[in-house]
Amino acid sequence: MTEKAHIGVTGLAVMGRNLARNFARHGHRVAVHNRRRERTDDLIEQFGGEGSFVPAYSLSELVDALERPRRLVVMVKAGRPTDDVLDELAPLLEEGDILVDAGNANFTDTRRREAALAERGLHFVGSGVSGGEEGALHGPSIMPGGSEAAYRELAPLLGDIAANVDGTPCVTHVGSDGAGHFVKMVHNGIEYSDMQLIAEAYDLLRHGLGRTPAAIAETFLDWNAGRLDSYLIEITAEVLGHTDSRTGKPFVDVVLDQAEQKGTGRWTVQSALELGTPVSGIAEAVFARSLSGHAELREAAQGLPGPGGSGVSSGEAERFTADVEQALYASKIVAYAQGFNQIQAGSAEYGWNIDLGAVAAIWRGGCIIRAEFLDRIRAAYAANPTLPTLLTDSGFQQALGEAQESWRRVVSTATSLGIPVPGFSTALAYYDALRAARLPAALVQGQRDFFGAHTYRRTDTDGVFHTEWAADRTEHEA
Amino acid sequence: MTEKAHIGVTGLAVMGRNLARNFARHGHRVAVHNRRRERTDDLIEQFGGEGSFVPAYSLSELVDALERPRRLVVMVKAGRPTDDVLDELAPLLEEGDILVDAGNANFTDTRRREAALAERGLHFVGSGVSGGEEGALHGPSIMPGGSEAAYRELAPLLGDIAANVDGTPCVTHVGSDGAGHFVKMVHNGIEYSDMQLIAEAYDLLRHGLGRTPAAIAETFLDWNAGRLDSYLIEITAEVLGHTDSRTGKPFVDVVLDQAEQKGTGRWTVQSALELGTPVSGIAEAVFARSLSGHAELREAAQGLPGPGGSGVSSGEAERFTADVEQALYASKIVAYAQGFNQIQAGSAEYGWNIDLGAVAAIWRGGCIIRAEFLDRIRAAYAANPTLPTLLTDSGFQQALGEAQESWRRVVSTATSLGIPVPGFSTALAYYDALRAARLPAALVQGQRDFFGAHTYRRTDTDGVFHTEWAADRTEHEA
Repeated sequence: MTEKAHIGVTGLAVMGRNLARNFARHGHRVAVHNRRRERTDDLIEQFGGEGSFVPAYSLSELVDALERPRRLVVMVKAGRPTDDVLDELAPLLEEGDILVDAGNANFTDTRRREAALAERGLHFVGSGVSGGEEGALHGPSIMPGGSEAAYRELAPLLGDIAANVDGTPCVTHVGSDGAGHFVKMVHNGIEYSDMQLIAEAYDLLRHGLGRTPAAIAETFLDWNAGRLDSYLIEITAEVLGHTDSRTGKPFVDVVLDQAEQKGTGRWTVQSALELGTPVSGIAEAVFARSLSGHAELREAAQGLPGPGGSGVSSGEAERFTADVEQALYASKIVAYAQGFNQIQAGSAEYGWNIDLGAVAAIWRGGCIIRAEFLDRIRAAYAANPTLPTLLTDSGFQQALGEAQESWRRVVSTATSLGIPVPGFSTALAYYDALRAARLPAALVQGQRDFFGAHTYRRTDTDGVFHTEWAADRTEHEA
Repeated sequence: MTEKAHIGVTGLAVMGRNLARNFARHGHRVAVHNRRRERTDDLIEQFGGEGSFVPAYSLSELVDALERPRRLVVMVKAGRPTDDVLDELAPLLEEGDILVDAGNANFTDTRRREAALAERGLHFVGSGVSGGEEGALHGPSIMPGGSEAAYRELAPLLGDIAANVDGTPCVTHVGSDGAGHFVKMVHNGIEYSDMQLIAEAYDLLRHGLGRTPAAIAETFLDWNAGRLDSYLIEITAEVLGHTDSRTGKPFVDVVLDQAEQKGTGRWTVQSALELGTPVSGIAEAVFARSLSGHAELREAAQGLPGPGGSGVSSGEAERFTADVEQALYASKIVAYAQGFNQIQAGSAEYGWNIDLGAVAAIWRGGCIIRAEFLDRIRAAYAANPTLPTLLTDSGFQQALGEAQESWRRVVSTATSLGIPVPGFSTALAYYDALRAARLPAALVQGQRDFFGAHTYRRTDTDGVFHTEWAADRTEHEA
C-alpha cells in the first residue's frame, strides 16, 4: 500500500460514488471513504474492476492514502453535515492540501468555509457539479471556485472527468472562494426558469390546442431538431411520449401536478434580491412550483370563475404551434439574460472577475441546461465581454425582433383562454420594460416623496429633490 | 423633577420626535433623549409647549426619568445601531422593563433580540409603525410583537397615539417576539405591490390612451370615490395633478424614472421564498423598481424592437379606462391575498397565532395602504377565520368574476402595445394557476425524475415513485 492515491472521495452516495468511478475510469488512483463502511466495500465489490481504488475506513486512513498536496473531494449533504466533515478533516491535513466541496452548498457558506480553512493554510474549493448521477459518472459540467493555486493542482484531474465539447473540457476556474457555488446556484435558477417555460409551452399545446401528450412529444422532437436543441427539450419529448407502465395512460397524466424543489432556485432569487438584479423569470418559476404544491389552496380555488372560450381552432393550430416555439425561444433568451446579469452582478459584488463567456462554454456540455444555445451565449460574450445584456447581442436581438409578434400573440391568447403563463408573461414584461423610453417608476418616486419624504432625482438637473407636499408644494434641493 | 415620565423615546430624528410629540399631545409625560443633545434641546424648544417633556442627556438619565416598569421606545436605524443602543441600555434596566423597537427591523433580528433580552428579564417589543412622519405625529398604524405582559403595559399609551377608525385604535398585539416586525414587513411588501399596480394603471392610460397626467389625475380622483378609495390612490391623483414649480411641466414628467427602495420589499420576498408562499406580485414590484434603476442596461436596450400599433382608439377610451379600473381592483385583491397568505404561513412557521382579521383592521387607518378595502378583508376573515385565500371570499370572488374579462382585455392590450404590466400579468397568472384543474407541474416532476431520479407522486395511488428511465422504463415505488 505504498502507492499513494491521486485523489480521495468521502461520501459515497450515488453522486460521490459516480465521481470516484469517473476518476478511476480515467486512470486515477482513487481513495474512497464513507462513514458507513458497507458503502465503501460495495463500491470496491461492484466497481473495483473499473480502475484503481484504495478503500479507507476512517478519515485518517483516507488522508494517509493521498499523495501531497492532498486532493480530497467531500460529497456529503450541504449544510451542517459538510461543516462536520470539514471540522474533522482539517486537523488531519497539512499546509497546501486541497479540500473540494462538490455538493450544492450555498455560496455564502462556501465563502465562510474558504476563509476559515485558508487561515489554517488549507485550500478549500467549493465546486459546482451539474449533470446529476449520469453526469457525475460520464462527464459533468464542473464549476470550481477557490484559489488559483488549488485549481492548478486540480485542473488535470477535473479536465479528465468533465464533459467535453469540441475537445474542450467543461471545467474552468470560475473565481475565488464562493464563485463556483454561486455560478452553480444561478445555473440551477436558470434551469428552473427553462423548465417552467417548457412546461408552459406544453400546457398551451395541451389545453390551448387540445393535443395529446404523444402528439406534443412529436412537436418537442421537431423543436429539438432546431434552435431549441437541448437536453431539457429532448427529455421533455421522452417524458411526454412515455406511457405509464401501471395504467397504460400517458405518463404525464398520472403524475401528481405538484412540483417539488430542493432550494437552489430559491437561493438564486434571494441572492438576486440582495444584488438588485431582476430575475423575474426564475422567481416566477420558483413560485409556480410552490403554488402547485399548495393543494388545499388549489382545491379551494377550483370554483373561481374562468373565461369562456373554446381554445385555438384547428385551422390556427400550425401557426399557434409556431408562435409557441417563438415565445419559448424569446422567453428563454430573457431567462438566460437575467441569469447572466446576476452572475455579472455577483462577480462585481464579491470581486470574482468571472468570465461570462467561459461560464457559458462550460455549460455547453454535462449539465442539465446543456444546449447549442450556450454556445451562442459564449459567442456573444466573446464578441463583447462587457455586453450589458444578452438581449442586445446582435444575434439574440434579431431573434427577439423576429419572435416578438408571435410572443405577444401567445401571451394574449393564453390570457384570454385562462391558461397561466407566468414565465412567458414576465419575460415579455421584462423585455418591454427594459426597452421603454419612460417607466412609471417616476410616479412611484413621486408617491414615495409624498408619503415619506424619500426625495427623488430629476430629468433636467443633477441633485436630490423634495417637494413640499404638505406646504406650498414647491420643489427644493434636499 | 420627582414626577416620573410615562414613557421614554431615544432617537429623535423625525420619526422618533413625532412619536414623542404624539405621546405628549395625548397627555403623557415623555422623557426624550438623543445622542446629539441639540436634537433634544430643539425638540423642547420647538414643541415643548405641546405637552410634558423631560429632556435626558444620557441613557442613564433617560432610564432614571421613567416610572416602573419602564417603557422605552428606541427609534434608531435598523441593524447595528439598534444593537448598539440595546447593548448600552440593557444593563441600566431592571426586570420587567419594556423596550420597544419602533424602527423597521428585520423580524429575524427582532426574534434574536427578544430572546437575548428575555434572558435578562427584560421585555422586548419589536413594533411595526406605519404612516411615515405624518402618521407618527397624527396617528400611525401600530403592529407590536413581544409578550402579552408587555403589551398590557403598552396598550393604553399605544391606543392613545394610534390612528383611529370608527372608534377602534389601529393597534393590536400581533403575536410574540418578531410577529410585529414580520407583519410590518409584509405590509410594506403589499405597499410595493399596490404602488406597482397603480403605476401600471397610470402607464396604460398615459401610453395606451395618450392622456395627460392632469387628465389621469382626474381619473384617479374618480376611482378614489369608488371601491378603490385609498390613501395611495388619493396621493396618486395629487402627484399626477401637480405641476413642477421649477419648469411648469407636469411633475411626473420631470422626475427621474428610477425607483428606489429601502429593503423591506426585498425582505418580504426573501421571507416568502423561505416560507414557500408565492408572492409574485410583490416580487414583480421589487424587480420593477430595481430594473428601473439599471440605467446603463436600459440605455443599451433602447434599440430593441417593439410592436407597431398606435394605442387604444379614442372611441374605446371609456371602456378601456373602465377595464383598467377592473384590472387594478382584481390585481389588488390578488396582491393582498398573497400577502395575507404569507402572514398565515409565517404565523404557522413561527407559532404566532396571528389573527388575520385583526391585522386587516389595524391597517384600515394610519398606514400607507390604509383603505376601505382593508375593512372588506377584515370582514372576510371575520366571516371565515380559516379562509384559505381571500380570492374565495364570496365578495372578492364575485368582484373577480365581474372583473376578469376586463382584466384579460387589459393584459392582452398591454401585451400587444408593448406596455410592460408585470404586476397585472402575474396577478392574473396566479389567479389562473390557482383555479387550474391541472398544472404542468406534472411535467416538471417527470423531468426531475428523468434527470435526477428525484421521484414523484401519482394521481392514482399514494406513495413515492420512480421510473427506470435509463432501463426498461417501468414505474416502481421508490
